[in-house]
Amino acid sequence: MREVDFVISGGMILVMDENNTIIPNGAVAIDGPDIAAVGHTENIATVFRGRRVIDARGSLVMPGLINGHTHAAMTCFRGIADDLTLMDWLNNYIFPAEAKNVSPELVYWGTQLACAEMIRSGTTTFCDMYIFEDDTARAAREAGLRCLLGEVLFDFASPNFKTPAEGLAYTERLLQKWADDPLVHIIVEPHALYTCSPDLLRDAKQLADRYGAPLGVHLLENLAEKKQLEDRFGGKTVSYLNDIGYLNDRFIAFHGVYLDEEDMTILAGQGCKVIHNPESNMKLASGVAPVPEMLKHGITVGLGTDGCASNNNLDMFQEMDTAAKLHKVHRLDPTVMNAETVLRMATCEGAKALGMGHLVGCLKTGMKADLIILGLNKPHLTPLYHPCSHLVYAANGADVDTVFINGRLVMEDRQLLTIDENEAMNRVRALAICVRESLNG
Amino acid sequence: MREVDFVISGGMILVMDENNTIIPNGAVAIDGPDIAAVGHTENIATVFRGRRVIDARGSLVMPGLINGHTHAAMTCFRGIADDLTLMDWLNNYIFPAEAKNVSPELVYWGTQLACAEMIRSGTTTFCDMYIFEDDTARAAREAGLRCLLGEVLFDFASPNFKTPAEGLAYTERLLQKWADDPLVHIIVEPHALYTCSPDLLRDAKQLADRYGAPLGVHLLENLAEKKQLEDRFGGKTVSYLNDIGYLNDRFIAFHGVYLDEEDMTILAGQGCKVIHNPESNMKLASGVAPVPEMLKHGITVGLGTDGCASNNNLDMFQEMDTAAKLHKVHRLDPTVMNAETVLRMATCEGAKALGMGHLVGCLKTGMKADLIILGLNKPHLTPLYHPCSHLVYAANGADVDTVFINGRLVMEDRQLLTIDENEAMNRVRALAICVRESLNG
Repeated sequence: MREVDFVISGGMILVMDENNTIIPNGAVAIDGPDIAAVGHTENIATVFRGRRVIDARGSLVMPGLINGHTHAAMTCFRGIADDLTLMDWLNNYIFPAEAKNVSPELVYWGTQLACAEMIRSGTTTFCDMYIFEDDTARAAREAGLRCLLGEVLFDFASPNFKTPAEGLAYTERLLQKWADDPLVHIIVEPHALYTCSPDLLRDAKQLADRYGAPLGVHLLENLAEKKQLEDRFGGKTVSYLNDIGYLNDRFIAFHGVYLDEEDMTILAGQGCKVIHNPESNMKLASGVAPVPEMLKHGITVGLGTDGCASNNNLDMFQEMDTAAKLHKVHRLDPTVMNAETVLRMATCEGAKALGMGHLVGCLKTGMKADLIILGLNKPHLTPLYHPCSHLVYAANGADVDTVFINGRLVMEDRQLLTIDENEAMNRVRALAICVRESLNG
Repeated sequence: MREVDFVISGGMILVMDENNTIIPNGAVAIDGPDIAAVGHTENIATVFRGRRVIDARGSLVMPGLINGHTHAAMTCFRGIADDLTLMDWLNNYIFPAEAKNVSPELVYWGTQLACAEMIRSGTTTFCDMYIFEDDTARAAREAGLRCLLGEVLFDFASPNFKTPAEGLAYTERLLQKWADDPLVHIIVEPHALYTCSPDLLRDAKQLADRYGAPLGVHLLENLAEKKQLEDRFGGKTVSYLNDIGYLNDRFIAFHGVYLDEEDMTILAGQGCKVIHNPESNMKLASGVAPVPEMLKHGITVGLGTDGCASNNNLDMFQEMDTAAKLHKVHRLDPTVMNAETVLRMATCEGAKALGMGHLVGCLKTGMKADLIILGLNKPHLTPLYHPCSHLVYAANGADVDTVFINGRLVMEDRQLLTIDENEAMNRVRALAICVRESLNG
């Protein structure tokens, strides 16, 4: 008998491996940060004794969800302005609110609030782009979330840096400081091609290559951007990136709404990744990304919520539901993007998109113990014919009861164990008063 | 001092009147089934003493949501088949499952389960079309939900009737039996124009007119239907209905995905109503209904979830979120269907669409006390800049704590008071085993 930290026993296990294996009465043994074993409850019980046993009968156990693109601290601007044209929304609300209010303190508390919301809705890993990301890292680390974080880089000054060179230096310090951290990983993130000079793009790429880090960028999110970039490059954007040697398997495109067949062929050939953000693309009226085509091209596609100013929550269950439905109606074909495909985008494929496919996204021996437990004994999840269908089309974030990240219990029976959420809410409410006043002033 | 049954005190009240009035620190007095008064907490306290006082500080109080179109008992088929072409889904799953399994017992328990889910997610009124609707009525009545129910009518036999004449006679018995009921209202519901002969359509209309009842029909839900009907009528469908005198202010079209400008002009002119079901229309790849145009034409539009086989839940909060976002991306215009518009479709406008605008959908003195209380002290609802924005874009059904219908407390602090939900779930699970076997056999 091997003694381990936890045995989660008697649940329906969604392994999220290549075969979408489901173990109807299964168990997971967790030791330290790792999954020690996954199997039938009886088999696990003959080999492992848990110092703690979690009874998962009547529950579903699955990998934690991977939010592939967000701006966590923007919880502070949740619902500050909706239903506006993009330029009105950005120029009259979001940019001024950010310029006047974003500080290390706002980022820390806004991220802590985001972490509370993400854990509560079953997200165990998130990829972030914002300002003062060292404070994002601090909040996520304390909350116990796994993350891939990058300081947003652009040509103009941010609340955190005066010049692009300072932004790059800050990013390099992040890469060094968090190099050996078990939870915090760093990504180099030039904001977008229309906000970064060729020099900044080149320097960001060199920095990423020097550290073997991923590089993520907002790419072809809307039609105006596509046209502007084609004017600037005198040709197509993805071809330009390919010509300058920008694309490799650590390149992550956020959005990719206006990718065409040629673009996808290039991205697939270079092993690039895409993160799809359907709710934000809908709310901002950006367009519908050609995700079924990306998948046909063999591109690894993850799923993200984008920030709370354009969604307005971080619930990956709702994001899955929307992803599955949006492409059906857009093509008038109900067979595209089935439940299993979308669930994989939010778990194993999402992990691969962030370069973490060897760590998380799937419940296998030796991988990190990032997993969530959902109670199934609820009217809206009854009866149960197909678990994947329920997760995508019927469940929501509030169905998550218990969350492990890196072998650590961070929520049990809907009680957060690593965050004082009342303090986080009160801090963000106080910050929001200043935000509101700054816009009225 | 007037003594009343309940005073709900200290909440943020969304009245949902013509001006979208919000009372930041408000109270609602409830006496018997009626709202006795709505106002500022201090003013209400000087006039009313509640035999019970509900403390709503930190909560939002608003009219219960109106689910304008569903098939409640289809909870029994939730997730039985997804991601299929319409004809494969209908002919190989839904129709055989219904033909072999639908019974008064299935309808009763399936509806009870649906009522549990609807109350839990803040729906206080639903409009239903299915088979054995007297059993739907019985389950809804016991659960305490307000409803508008109709037996589905078509040319072929149903599990409940052999001939259309029997279906009409059954509907007339419903109209008589429930005539004076405070909660159960009856609607005449020919299924659709492609499943009903001209004789059945005419008889259904005459029955509705004789009782002054609403008449609801699936109308132009998908493109194949539109073409088939145009071939049959040798012209446009709505024009045909108008020509035969079918349209009036008690006519309710479910879906209306393929209405054009001329159709909308006719429907608006006759005071007809439309129920929009965006999630079902997306999942079945039916299309995007021209809702912003309907509203411009002055048509009263409500919102519905459709049945659980094509959604797959009854959560009107998710339906609002989807409704607000879908039309933005479909037109590449983020200003259409703002949060207030969508919230009105799910409350006051939805009530008007069902002919219940004088009873519910708005918190005014003399209207029925159908209201819901949502706790706001949650990470995903923090901070709070605009309550309508949160209800549409950030909340979900699980945020509803307490529900009143017709002055009766049916859920308090997420405990259902009128339904034994464990029994309902167990009964539906047992029925689902038979459903699954009937499809495999």
